[in-house]
Amino acid sequence: MRRKENLMGRKIIQKEASLINRTSLRVRFSEVDSMRIVWHGEYIRYFEDGRESFGRQYSGLGYMEMHEAGYFVPMVHVEVDFKSPLKVGDIVIVETRFINSEAAKICFQYILYRESDMQVVATGESVQVFLNSSFELELLSPSFYQEWKRRWKIE
Amino acid sequence: MRRKENLMGRKIIQKEASLINRTSLRVRFSEVDSMRIVWHGEYIRYFEDGRESFGRQYSGLGYMEMHEAGYFVPMVHVEVDFKSPLKVGDIVIVETRFINSEAAKICFQYILYRESDMQVVATGESVQVFLNSSFELELLSPSFYQEWKRRWKIE
Amino acid sequence: MRRKENLMGRKIIQKEASLINRTSLRVRFSEVDSMRIVWHGEYIRYFEDGRESFGRQYSGLGYMEMHEAGYFVPMVHVEVDFKSPLKVGDIVIVETRFINSEAAKICFQYILYRESDMQVVATGESVQVFLNSSFELELLSPSFYQEWKRRWKIE
Amino acid sequence: MRRKENLMGRKIIQKEASLINRTSLRVRFSEVDSMRIVWHGEYIRYFEDGRESFGRQYSGLGYMEMHEAGYFVPMVHVEVDFKSPLKVGDIVIVETRFINSEAAKICFQYILYRESDMQVVATGESVQVFLNSSFELELLSPSFYQEWKRRWKIE
Repeated sequence: MRRKENLMGRKIIQKEASLINRTSLRVRFSEVDSMRIVWHGEYIRYFEDGRESFGRQYSGLGYMEMHEAGYFVPMVHVEVDFKSPLKVGDIVIVETRFINSEAAKICFQYILYRESDMQVVATGESVQVFLNSSFELELLSPSFYQEWKRRWKIE
Repeated sequence: MRRKENLMGRKIIQKEASLINRTSLRVRFSEVDSMRIVWHGEYIRYFEDGRESFGRQYSGLGYMEMHEAGYFVPMVHVEVDFKSPLKVGDIVIVETRFINSEAAKICFQYILYRESDMQVVATGESVQVFLNSSFELELLSPSFYQEWKRRWKIE
Repeated sequence: MRRKENLMGRKIIQKEASLINRTSLRVRFSEVDSMRIVWHGEYIRYFEDGRESFGRQYSGLGYMEMHEAGYFVPMVHVEVDFKSPLKVGDIVIVETRFINSEAAKICFQYILYRESDMQVVATGESVQVFLNSSFELELLSPSFYQEWKRRWKIE
Repeated sequence: MRRKENLMGRKIIQKEASLINRTSLRVRFSEVDSMRIVWHGEYIRYFEDGRESFGRQYSGLGYMEMHEAGYFVPMVHVEVDFKSPLKVGDIVIVETRFINSEAAKICFQYILYRESDMQVVATGESVQVFLNSSFELELLSPSFYQEWKRRWKIE
């Protein structure tokens, strides 16, 4: 049931995603486990690759830029749905979609494709919040984030 | 909204969890990131530590035992909610709860506590499915899994 | 003293290295530690990236190809000298040099450069041996390895 | 040749090691690779576990304590010799030996044993230097380090 709602929710959200980045990576030997498929925890790194690549395309949301603006953006939620296994040497396309939110949060969705057949191998999402330099939670979106949204035409 | 539903669902499910394992680990220097807190991806390893410890307590569900029974149990879903940061040297108690399901799946919930103050630092869940030795999905619970449930009085 | 001999030996060996691959990678957020520099253990992955890239350029020595030829090539020695720290976002050039040996071993040297200033940030070496499919050590170079050397004009 | 010298050197050095810590860990599923043995890069983490455990036994040399004394201690050299493979579930004993040096360096040797048969599965060494809070290399041993040596009767 919940899974279905999730998929439904995803469909609606995907229509709304206005900023999308795609980057690719190659599966490393050290990332596969004894089943000869990528160990599930490695996908968290793949998502991070996606976020960093997103931050380079839509400048102002990179880790270093946010840090210089005086904020940390720790993860508060991450989830992954694994659809099809990845093997050594596979090229993975990481599609990272910015999901706008009224709240003081950074939300991303991820869709991972195997390049050879463009099959979806995994999907996922993440939510980050803002801490100021005293490590206190910001309940309102910091001004740098609001400006970033304006620059990239997200209302 | 969804978060609230999740918490509600969790409360109900927790009552049902009959098999529980607790194990502890110490946060390593290599696990913290440049914010000096544990990098969020490391929690996936902590969950794995929990599952392995669970498998030792409730024998028959360890990785090697399932492999010897002819099955792989790849992850199809994992999620983590991060509540409070962990630092170098913190002792973490990983509580792993078996969530019974009619489906041919292995479902776990995880609650991570910081030992020093017993605060919940993270919660999460995971779902695994059964592949036979030809890497085909098993739609019915394998007999070794049904026997394991009977042995541990899970109906 | 030993360090000096190493450097001397390195100079001589580098002249002999006939097969060289260069590949680049970008430092990930998850790879830096609480000192905000790349955690030293991550360099082992960078070396692996170098070897895999080498194996693609000089086909026949990739992990999968060796596995299909019936051999495992476990690491028996690895070492790293760290010269200068790497930070988030740095581009690293991994130079992987094949070092020929009479023995039944695969030896590589690695030189890592920071792309922005081409400074050497680390050097290292690795030694792998051959195990057959019964996991027994091969004391003589397998025929596929001898053929690979002939193909790439290594005498 | 060099390997032999190494072994010779090791024998002499081991006699001199006055401070020794032993700690144990269990091989995780996520640490084994597609050969079903621990991926070689994981040993760098095992060494770190050894150092951290050493720092707890001989207080004053833990990562946090050195940081509070105003120093970073980045790695400048690490090496590993792999003797025998480790598998999922193996218990590893990490023996960490402090090797005294006149130079402003922290040197450790590591000997890893498989608990079940006490076979040596790997050996290694590491060298760290001192950076002050301006990230400048300290050419003389910081006073906190000299005091630590006196406290633990290392001349």
